[in-house]
Amino acid sequence: MIIHIDKNLEQKRVEELAVKHEAVYYKSAEKYVLITSSKMKSIPDELKSVAAEHFFLDSDIQLASRSYLKETRKIKIGNHYIGGDQKNTIIIAGPCAIESEKQIRESAALLKELDIIALRAGAYKPRTSPYTFQGLGKAGLELLDKIGDEYNLQIVTEVRDASQVDDVILHADIIQIGAKSMYDHGILRKCAKVRKPVILKRGFGASLQEFVQCAEFMLSGGNEQVILCERGIRTFETKTRFTLDLCGVAYLKEYTNLPIIVDPSHAIGWSYGVADLARAGMAMGVDGLLIEVHPDPKIAKSDASQQLNHDQFRALFKTLKPIAEAVGKHIV
Amino acid sequence: MIIHIDKNLEQKRVEELAVKHEAVYYKSAEKYVLITSSKMKSIPDELKSVAAEHFFLDSDIQLASRSYLKETRKIKIGNHYIGGDQKNTIIIAGPCAIESEKQIRESAALLKELDIIALRAGAYKPRTSPYTFQGLGKAGLELLDKIGDEYNLQIVTEVRDASQVDDVILHADIIQIGAKSMYDHGILRKCAKVRKPVILKRGFGASLQEFVQCAEFMLSGGNEQVILCERGIRTFETKTRFTLDLCGVAYLKEYTNLPIIVDPSHAIGWSYGVADLARAGMAMGVDGLLIEVHPDPKIAKSDASQQLNHDQFRALFKTLKPIAEAVGKHIV
Amino acid sequence: MIIHIDKNLEQKRVEELAVKHEAVYYKSAEKYVLITSSKMKSIPDELKSVAAEHFFLDSDIQLASRSYLKETRKIKIGNHYIGGDQKNTIIIAGPCAIESEKQIRESAALLKELDIIALRAGAYKPRTSPYTFQGLGKAGLELLDKIGDEYNLQIVTEVRDASQVDDVILHADIIQIGAKSMYDHGILRKCAKVRKPVILKRGFGASLQEFVQCAEFMLSGGNEQVILCERGIRTFETKTRFTLDLCGVAYLKEYTNLPIIVDPSHAIGWSYGVADLARAGMAMGVDGLLIEVHPDPKIAKSDASQQLNHDQFRALFKTLKPIAEAVGKHIV
Amino acid sequence: MIIHIDKNLEQKRVEELAVKHEAVYYKSAEKYVLITSSKMKSIPDELKSVAAEHFFLDSDIQLASRSYLKETRKIKIGNHYIGGDQKNTIIIAGPCAIESEKQIRESAALLKELDIIALRAGAYKPRTSPYTFQGLGKAGLELLDKIGDEYNLQIVTEVRDASQVDDVILHADIIQIGAKSMYDHGILRKCAKVRKPVILKRGFGASLQEFVQCAEFMLSGGNEQVILCERGIRTFETKTRFTLDLCGVAYLKEYTNLPIIVDPSHAIGWSYGVADLARAGMAMGVDGLLIEVHPDPKIAKSDASQQLNHDQFRALFKTLKPIAEAVGKHIV
Repeated sequence: MIIHIDKNLEQKRVEELAVKHEAVYYKSAEKYVLITSSKMKSIPDELKSVAAEHFFLDSDIQLASRSYLKETRKIKIGNHYIGGDQKNTIIIAGPCAIESEKQIRESAALLKELDIIALRAGAYKPRTSPYTFQGLGKAGLELLDKIGDEYNLQIVTEVRDASQVDDVILHADIIQIGAKSMYDHGILRKCAKVRKPVILKRGFGASLQEFVQCAEFMLSGGNEQVILCERGIRTFETKTRFTLDLCGVAYLKEYTNLPIIVDPSHAIGWSYGVADLARAGMAMGVDGLLIEVHPDPKIAKSDASQQLNHDQFRALFKTLKPIAEAVGKHIV
Repeated sequence: MIIHIDKNLEQKRVEELAVKHEAVYYKSAEKYVLITSSKMKSIPDELKSVAAEHFFLDSDIQLASRSYLKETRKIKIGNHYIGGDQKNTIIIAGPCAIESEKQIRESAALLKELDIIALRAGAYKPRTSPYTFQGLGKAGLELLDKIGDEYNLQIVTEVRDASQVDDVILHADIIQIGAKSMYDHGILRKCAKVRKPVILKRGFGASLQEFVQCAEFMLSGGNEQVILCERGIRTFETKTRFTLDLCGVAYLKEYTNLPIIVDPSHAIGWSYGVADLARAGMAMGVDGLLIEVHPDPKIAKSDASQQLNHDQFRALFKTLKPIAEAVGKHIV
Repeated sequence: MIIHIDKNLEQKRVEELAVKHEAVYYKSAEKYVLITSSKMKSIPDELKSVAAEHFFLDSDIQLASRSYLKETRKIKIGNHYIGGDQKNTIIIAGPCAIESEKQIRESAALLKELDIIALRAGAYKPRTSPYTFQGLGKAGLELLDKIGDEYNLQIVTEVRDASQVDDVILHADIIQIGAKSMYDHGILRKCAKVRKPVILKRGFGASLQEFVQCAEFMLSGGNEQVILCERGIRTFETKTRFTLDLCGVAYLKEYTNLPIIVDPSHAIGWSYGVADLARAGMAMGVDGLLIEVHPDPKIAKSDASQQLNHDQFRALFKTLKPIAEAVGKHIV
Repeated sequence: MIIHIDKNLEQKRVEELAVKHEAVYYKSAEKYVLITSSKMKSIPDELKSVAAEHFFLDSDIQLASRSYLKETRKIKIGNHYIGGDQKNTIIIAGPCAIESEKQIRESAALLKELDIIALRAGAYKPRTSPYTFQGLGKAGLELLDKIGDEYNLQIVTEVRDASQVDDVILHADIIQIGAKSMYDHGILRKCAKVRKPVILKRGFGASLQEFVQCAEFMLSGGNEQVILCERGIRTFETKTRFTLDLCGVAYLKEYTNLPIIVDPSHAIGWSYGVADLARAGMAMGVDGLLIEVHPDPKIAKSDASQQLNHDQFRALFKTLKPIAEAVGKHIV
């Protein structure tokens, strides 16, 4: 149950009630919001007496539920918004990993050429082998931050584990929580306290229910700027790296109030299909696309097979606009 | 290896060679085509001497491979074509099951209203429980055939098992092999000998390799009119009925020469997402969409949750055209 | 709902009631048994008046449910029984495919040496490629039948599709329905009318619910001798061919009344793990094990990687006895 | 490639070589071990000149490969060993979560009664909902540590994310890395530097290759006491919580040199099947079993459905011994 607490109540009392009723709470713009387990199906008198409003939800998808908030949450990115009534779709692009200043400058220049506002690149790579490139780490973060300032780009970069979350929070404009870290409470709790947008990528073995419940960790901790990203789930099919779950995207659009972006690059893992899948996402009217593009994919230190080169990306970008128009969206 | 046999060779000799080299063969428009295991990596002298051309393929995806034929195979449906250089996308629509003449007439009328040329409906339902509606059987087939003639619609209907394949072949314009029957050799061998298009639906537990290899059973038996249909695979996600594998569609477009259609209805299993997924398929430029629509889904005897009603279908259909235009396709 | 019909009622009336209430029925030893959809949650007066007993079940797992029959069904195989209170585990062994008389004789001799009573081998192979060995067909069936008589072995062989079901029914002592044919109504309906045991293999993409419901097709058609076989499901893991679902076996033991056998060979697809998995199955107290063994696996025409040779099989067989004893089972 | 460095070489030089050849290294008992990517298929002269031995491996499963070390690694737990030539199977048991001192004392007493040496219980619970019990945290850890000392039990407890890894390392005798944290570099890197055994649970969406590669992070960082734990993978089957992958266990036994334990409780998620699956694991000759048991499962704050009560556990334990004997193992 979600309870909007009466504005006159002091935090100390909210805290007491939360402890007593095994609830969590946070302070929204003007009020305290207290959330109990969804299994609580009637409101105790003590809570009723301090409730301005209350909402029963079917499952522990509560703050993220469209039954709670009808409209998609509106989130500011640079000078633009996604969600709300804006009909915007943001393009976020860039290389898998930060490899050099030259590479990042070329990526930034490509984005400026196309009026794209958000640059993605990873400093900490969640590799599964200890014997492969692990990312430039903090030096990479600082470089990215510098280039972002210089080119006036929003920086999107990934936190791999809770030991670097503070550094990423400091340097990123938009924090990305990677698929392998989706369940990481250390990261989720830190990101709950930040006033920056967070892109939460779906774990490739995570159900939609778990995915949105991880977003709930941040929402219920006070960060209302959570964006969901579908990037492919692991299935029996091995011809492609993962299986992009657009049925899942349809579900999330229908039942949650969070903006949704689609990452075709990690889903298929091969550049040949990225453009088609990006167009599919656009035709579904998603709030954003996250696409890997590299000045020279053949020499990329990670994800070489799936990154578009600059010309391929330009060609794709050109085809997205008419589809956006066909479904009433604007590309930012 | 695929071998185009010299035109002067008689069938008797082709047959002998096929037996000797554990190969299969069929007669194409002007020539015999003999196919050995793809593991045969050099051509024996005896075969070389009768070969007009020969092609080595990486796997037992041979006749369906784009390495063998560069262009998508062109298949005639009514007075239109899909594949080839036609840039057409066919819409196939109708109810899950044939329930009554009234219902099928209403479906047919909807299609005529929208200039849609192909009507789908099932007479034999591959239900997993013996205690639910199993379809009208042969009477359903005959009804469908009659309505198809009357309204000048191409009839698409499914064969469930080899015991009814002859009846379906007789009455359908396009034979649909259902997902649960994809591996059925009894059906595949019969359909290989027919001169009608066949839509082969991907088994929900079948890999792409197996899927296309089942198409090879028909191609190598002489039926060159095989259409692939992606309709969702079974994954761990349970919020939706299946997971539409559009990464797989991208793979099939890249590596095979068969037309591909997408069935969003069975994939998601819920009507709320059908329109979005149909638009996604269209944006990928597929050769067809297969959509379930019922005059009154609430009372449907099967698949009630996933069928659109007529108004929902009209609304969807209207939005498909601008997307088709955006990607250079024509709806037929 | 399952209804045991009063013994005085004539078949004609049972038939009328079945049609009227959208039910199916069959004749058991002494009575007609009528089964409606499990969604029927109260018994209509008309049915109540002819019911000796009736049973409400949670789902369309009805005749197979342990809520309906507490004890595992007892099935005669040769001179032995599995199920009931017998505590027997049957070993069924033999090569993947019938390749030659010599090969089958060697297999039969191995079984006799070890007092094993059931020989398995396939005449119709459900291959996924048209360019590989498809089995000896009817000639293979006849050979197997002959050798079975000669060596006094129970013959277990697989039907691949409904077009050969009559031949398999004629020659087999125990009919095996393969994983790829689990949903095949043409086969299920024929096997429902036979008075021979049927081993139903779980489709590798089939849920437990669907698996048991396919058994219900045969049970409700009158064949009470249905045995379930778990042989691995398809998952994201590719190091092994399939994933043996022993959690599923535990579920089936708990909730169904059908004997269960485990096939470790097809599950893992590699001979190195077959013995360990066979021992695991035995330790779970299953009713049977189905193991592939070949006189010379290296030259096998199918499944070469997963078949044990005769010495490996003898070594495994020796270790099964003490485990059987440890869990109170007898090997037959 | 794994290189055993000549004993005369100083660390400084090893470090230089590691940086130059993009390798990692650690100090084993008597020597430095340097590991490059497995893609390096020949040894550079500079490395050859300092190599006492070198080993080429097929994939980035290197230190864990049985091609590198033939015998299973021997790991000391309390006064016993698993692995090596010891033929021991360790039973690790206890409740899902630490709930109270009374509960943990009862668990500890049960273990002493049965001569079991290792107690498991969680202080930090990796829940997927923010609105459920999250564990007692540090207070739980301290309690567990105290009870472990008092009852002379080895304490096994889980680290959930990198923010508590230091606390868990301090209080546990054996550190458990949970399935949801398997990829967590922050945890893996810390555990690589510890001289305590680590149980690495397989992520339920992780391939065997990734699973063992995560073990490689610790092995290559210098912790040679890594134990693998199979606890079920996520598949399409929903009747059970996960699918225990015993094919995977067979693979790990064949191809890796790490001890393997099986957790049937989390795999099936229901108490009815835990005993059968534990017996299956024992029959495969695994190095350990991890079983959830709670004084009163009905009131457990997490995993209530899958925990055995004390009587069920005693009954199971009694049946494990004869199976252990049948396969030549000793329970510790």
